Amino acid sequence: MRELSAKVLHGDTQAIARMITLIENNDSEAIRAMADIHKKSGHAHVIGITGVMGSGKSSLIFELAYSYRKQGKKIGVIAIDPTSPFSGGALLGDRVRMMELSTDDDVFIRSMGTRGMLGGVSNSVFDVVEIFDAAGMDIILIETVGVGQAEVDIVKIADTTLVVLVPGLGDSIQTIKAGLMEIADIFVVNKADKPGVEQVVAEIESMLDISSKLGREIPIVKTSTKQKIGISDLIGEIDTHGLYLKKEKKLEMKRRKRYESELTEIIRKRLMNLIFDESKFKDTLDSLIDQISRKELDAYSAADEILGKILK
Amino acid sequence: MRELSAKVLHGDTQAIARMITLIENNDSEAIRAMADIHKKSGHAHVIGITGVMGSGKSSLIFELAYSYRKQGKKIGVIAIDPTSPFSGGALLGDRVRMMELSTDDDVFIRSMGTRGMLGGVSNSVFDVVEIFDAAGMDIILIETVGVGQAEVDIVKIADTTLVVLVPGLGDSIQTIKAGLMEIADIFVVNKADKPGVEQVVAEIESMLDISSKLGREIPIVKTSTKQKIGISDLIGEIDTHGLYLKKEKKLEMKRRKRYESELTEIIRKRLMNLIFDESKFKDTLDSLIDQISRKELDAYSAADEILGKILK
Repeated sequence: MRELSAKVLHGDTQAIARMITLIENNDSEAIRAMADIHKKSGHAHVIGITGVMGSGKSSLIFELAYSYRKQGKKIGVIAIDPTSPFSGGALLGDRVRMMELSTDDDVFIRSMGTRGMLGGVSNSVFDVVEIFDAAGMDIILIETVGVGQAEVDIVKIADTTLVVLVPGLGDSIQTIKAGLMEIADIFVVNKADKPGVEQVVAEIESMLDISSKLGREIPIVKTSTKQKIGISDLIGEIDTHGLYLKKEKKLEMKRRKRYESELTEIIRKRLMNLIFDESKFKDTLDSLIDQISRKELDAYSAADEILGKILK
Repeated sequence: MRELSAKVLHGDTQAIARMITLIENNDSEAIRAMADIHKKSGHAHVIGITGVMGSGKSSLIFELAYSYRKQGKKIGVIAIDPTSPFSGGALLGDRVRMMELSTDDDVFIRSMGTRGMLGGVSNSVFDVVEIFDAAGMDIILIETVGVGQAEVDIVKIADTTLVVLVPGLGDSIQTIKAGLMEIADIFVVNKADKPGVEQVVAEIESMLDISSKLGREIPIVKTSTKQKIGISDLIGEIDTHGLYLKKEKKLEMKRRKRYESELTEIIRKRLMNLIFDESKFKDTLDSLIDQISRKELDAYSAADEILGKILK
């Protein structure tokens, strides 16, 4: 395992893939090896990309990765997909196109599921970021899909969060805008070749006016991956935000928040595994649920019984 | 508190509202009173309505509630919205229209947020279902918004799950279809006045052919809330599904699953509150996160330290 983490630190792609798989499977040696990984992480610029489905996030990541490669940077891409808890697998969708990039040895792409029944971003995402970072990747792009938890969780991991909107989504965008406003470091209006782009920009601007409590002005960048417009502007704004974080000592705070979220996730997972994945409590749980079903007990009292067995 | 739960069991709307608020605030007496509530629950038909944003779920619930009221049934509506974790509040959006219904004493509407940073459906939703049920509501309609956790979680609460699709959403619908296929007891193709409705029906049918492992045929109902089409068909199919559950003894299994999910949620919440909300561990956590930030410790080892303090 020491050998594996040493290989990861040298950027060996096979070792990276193997390390991630071991971590996702809760391998105890891999977990111990994360101490080595953690010591070497902290250099990569972690960029979160979020927005509604159909806003072209995958294409945008493709273009960003392509441009960063031209600058000679090493890239990690993490795509977080909604998981069917029934199939246990992540949906790949239109991400196939990104396989083009994956023939490049300095681009590493990993697709991950969300956490299934408990929602949100799996603690493995934190590990993958640390592994990519320690392995020498300069830029880590994280795509989260959909509206809801994943987009909110991304701010806990990313240094810079891009919120992607598109023209023509109508009222549906209104309902999510308040939440999106709060998490965006940069707004991207993608599909800027389509009609209605100025309206989206105007809507964002009016929302920003209302919520302008921050010292920093939030940029709005218009892009079209189809017509290759705005990508270098976007990279410029991402760089500017990265410098701003360092200059204003905000990066340390962001990272501290990330570690806090990671610790929370690990603790949550361990506790839930302890109760629900170990055979030790299976009979007790089954019996308690039967009692609830028969109306002999309510769920709160049942929870008290279980917690009494594990807590000091 | 006994008095309050007695009033709830008599269907007193003010008492219901107060009980829910107390439960949402983790009031310990209200939690104890849930034992009384639980004994009297189990009669309502719990209907989950899920689907992408813009599919008209709120309008559909409005029409369903209106029709059920004509049958003399008492209705509870629970709308679960995406929450901005920053504002702490739920977004109301176009739900305002439903206020029309709320002047009816036999309709009770409650809007709830999702669980914030940990995602998914709050354990309070289970409590609200039990309270509505014990208070004599015949039909409980639960709306979950968006794509992701909430739509998956709804099957753990609902007896009958409606998945709402609409024409014209294009490819974006493809990516979520696999997950939706698994949870639907009934498909609703809403906005059936728009072009492309038959294509959506055909797509669902072809997906159902692939995954047809179930004994029961999944109905597809076309509705238009604008033109008041298909609502009585939909109610017919909901009733049929309710009878099917009872006849095939599947209702007991569904309810047992619901109680299991509720118990899991309560345990999760209690454990996380114990560690993260009590001042007892605040200094320890802060110090551990500082050590992680300074690279003296990794998150997994920090988790071990915290768990060592609380577990037997």
